[in-house]
Amino acid sequence: MTSRRSVLASGLSAAALYAAKTSYTYAEIDRMIARGDVKGKLSKADLPTPALIVDLDAFEGNVKKMVGYVKSKGRAIRPHGKTHKCPDIAKYIIAQGAVGACSAKLSEAEAFADNGVNGLLVTTAVIGKHKIERAVAIAKKHPDIIYSMDNAQNARDMNDAAGVAKVKLNVAIDLWVGKRTGIIPGDAAVALGEAISKLPNLKLHGIQAYAGHASHAIGFENRKKVSIEAMTPAVETRFALEKKGISCPWLSGGSTGTYNIDTHIEGITELQPGSFMFMDVDYNRIGSESGSEIYTDFKNSLFVLATVVSKPKDDTAIVDGGLKAFSTDKPFPPQWRGGNELPYAFAGDEHGRLTLNAGKQVSIGDRLEFIIPHCDPSVNLHDRIYAVRGEQVEAVWRVAARGLGQ
Amino acid sequence: MTSRRSVLASGLSAAALYAAKTSYTYAEIDRMIARGDVKGKLSKADLPTPALIVDLDAFEGNVKKMVGYVKSKGRAIRPHGKTHKCPDIAKYIIAQGAVGACSAKLSEAEAFADNGVNGLLVTTAVIGKHKIERAVAIAKKHPDIIYSMDNAQNARDMNDAAGVAKVKLNVAIDLWVGKRTGIIPGDAAVALGEAISKLPNLKLHGIQAYAGHASHAIGFENRKKVSIEAMTPAVETRFALEKKGISCPWLSGGSTGTYNIDTHIEGITELQPGSFMFMDVDYNRIGSESGSEIYTDFKNSLFVLATVVSKPKDDTAIVDGGLKAFSTDKPFPPQWRGGNELPYAFAGDEHGRLTLNAGKQVSIGDRLEFIIPHCDPSVNLHDRIYAVRGEQVEAVWRVAARGLGQ
Repeated sequence: MTSRRSVLASGLSAAALYAAKTSYTYAEIDRMIARGDVKGKLSKADLPTPALIVDLDAFEGNVKKMVGYVKSKGRAIRPHGKTHKCPDIAKYIIAQGAVGACSAKLSEAEAFADNGVNGLLVTTAVIGKHKIERAVAIAKKHPDIIYSMDNAQNARDMNDAAGVAKVKLNVAIDLWVGKRTGIIPGDAAVALGEAISKLPNLKLHGIQAYAGHASHAIGFENRKKVSIEAMTPAVETRFALEKKGISCPWLSGGSTGTYNIDTHIEGITELQPGSFMFMDVDYNRIGSESGSEIYTDFKNSLFVLATVVSKPKDDTAIVDGGLKAFSTDKPFPPQWRGGNELPYAFAGDEHGRLTLNAGKQVSIGDRLEFIIPHCDPSVNLHDRIYAVRGEQVEAVWRVAARGLGQ
Repeated sequence: MTSRRSVLASGLSAAALYAAKTSYTYAEIDRMIARGDVKGKLSKADLPTPALIVDLDAFEGNVKKMVGYVKSKGRAIRPHGKTHKCPDIAKYIIAQGAVGACSAKLSEAEAFADNGVNGLLVTTAVIGKHKIERAVAIAKKHPDIIYSMDNAQNARDMNDAAGVAKVKLNVAIDLWVGKRTGIIPGDAAVALGEAISKLPNLKLHGIQAYAGHASHAIGFENRKKVSIEAMTPAVETRFALEKKGISCPWLSGGSTGTYNIDTHIEGITELQPGSFMFMDVDYNRIGSESGSEIYTDFKNSLFVLATVVSKPKDDTAIVDGGLKAFSTDKPFPPQWRGGNELPYAFAGDEHGRLTLNAGKQVSIGDRLEFIIPHCDPSVNLHDRIYAVRGEQVEAVWRVAARGLGQ
């Protein structure tokens, strides 16, 4: 049992921190956000925690580097919106040179389309009568949208619905080059391409081919081998279609891990990376082309800001972010942004436990930033991203497609 | 590479399924939900997937059993709202005999209070000037709300804010009996109780003591030992306060795993279980008092409904629910509701991979229900819970506190 002295001591150290807070009420902050009137007025210290924050200097640098690199290699880039789910971010990256945004699911594409994002590619097949009706409705307003598909029945269903609505749908053959969705490359895919080319209301745009297992392969040379092995059948399928007289001018694939591999593969015309803008613990560990074990190509820009809410023992502090604030699909925990001195362990839905015997001390009320294990599912937990530069909040981005996995 | 024949074969089997769908558009479904006009009109087959569904027969049976049991032992029950985050559910359980609802965090309590839930207990300390202002504002409208705290500085801060607002706050000492938040039981906690009793704007309601490690201890006898060890210091602290003349009439703890243990411990006056209403793979494995390895006290009522969207190989089908539809914090995957014949593995943010060589076959368009690994963080991914009886949707519950972890 701790002495009364330690209770009072931890109380005293907290007092100074309370005094440092500014005086906005939460209602005032909500109104500032609603008006879009936060720049120069709201600081990180004002934010209710746990809060998802983006370091704008790092984020903008990541976007500039990725877009610049891919375009310099003569390829287009359509970053994946499943990473950010924010129309504001999709439009920002398009303004920087991207041709549009990918969506994993139909409802995500709807959220982007409704908020003014053009150049959409839906990377999962749209299955079921209701969803197909909705897909056709988006295409009426956004004729450049591209839908992925991987079987002939779905092609006929999409064609029929497009016919009823008097719209022509751009479609891509989704190829199984990873371990998710798609038709097997080669003969089967070519047969599907032929079937699509005969359907009057579909237009074959090209091939969608995402190799998820390549993106996180550890070590650059290993990753290069895995990605080339995965993407070669996609390129061959594209050329086999062309050889049959079926136009297939487009092949989209690639990821944050393979951007500097896939842009050197002949026949891939477009990249669809997502994580590069935010980065996470998982991507930090895949290794760079330079040989570095840490992947330094892009900077960590996404963090969860959390507050120390309890200090039950001298060696233990509890922060207010747990299973509901961070992704949990990876076998490693969040990492304190400041270094290794505050190891974090999940402590239930709402809390994390910091071990304090590695040197760094904290007090109740302290605010700490954590790099998240995996960016995409973490963003999907939060309704807002606070975009900060230094201590100031410059913008609040609504995660408009949060939860839209349908 | 598969032959063209297998492409056509999988296409044909899907055709019959498409034909079975009803003809509501999504916009029509949205309007039905907005009007609260779904009963008798909307069926499971109409729902966009992935969808979180509750089997009402199982859910209602679980609530009846838990509330009945706890009350029969002369204790009160205030189920934890962090599990469901739905004001509709909190009010339903109160109507069945609960005294109120717990909230893990302040913003969750706000969502409940704003939607007519009384008898709130906030189980984590409210830290920081902004949050304390908000806590006091809730108490002005809901004077029965109870706030947990675990240090003297926070008690003084809460007291000061309550004084400014001219409100008296009910507070509970949060005890470290598990591995999350709280003050060490015994002398330190008694000293905090004395400090609280001297603050004019706080009223000590009692003790909050949640032993998370006990709730999931495997095997009933083991769990009983762990829970008694954890809760005994809480009971002793309560009686030590009373001995000093400090009124401490209330002690809340317990969980779905320990409801039939803690209701037999003298001095615990109230239980705060959550998962019992839904259950999950995790709780299914803790073992029953009867000796059964499967925990059969409560039934699985919560499922994710997903659709087969791709069938790339004869032994592989892909469903449209992945890391963003299911919790991922446990070392086991979702389980098909129908048995062991469709083993599921996560396949990225948006997909799951089913292995088909265990006997059961599926086709594109098939809809399947999965038991989720851990209920609380799964509910927090979804904006709605569809309450179904048989094939019919009877109600749609808004997860009003989803994402409110602040």
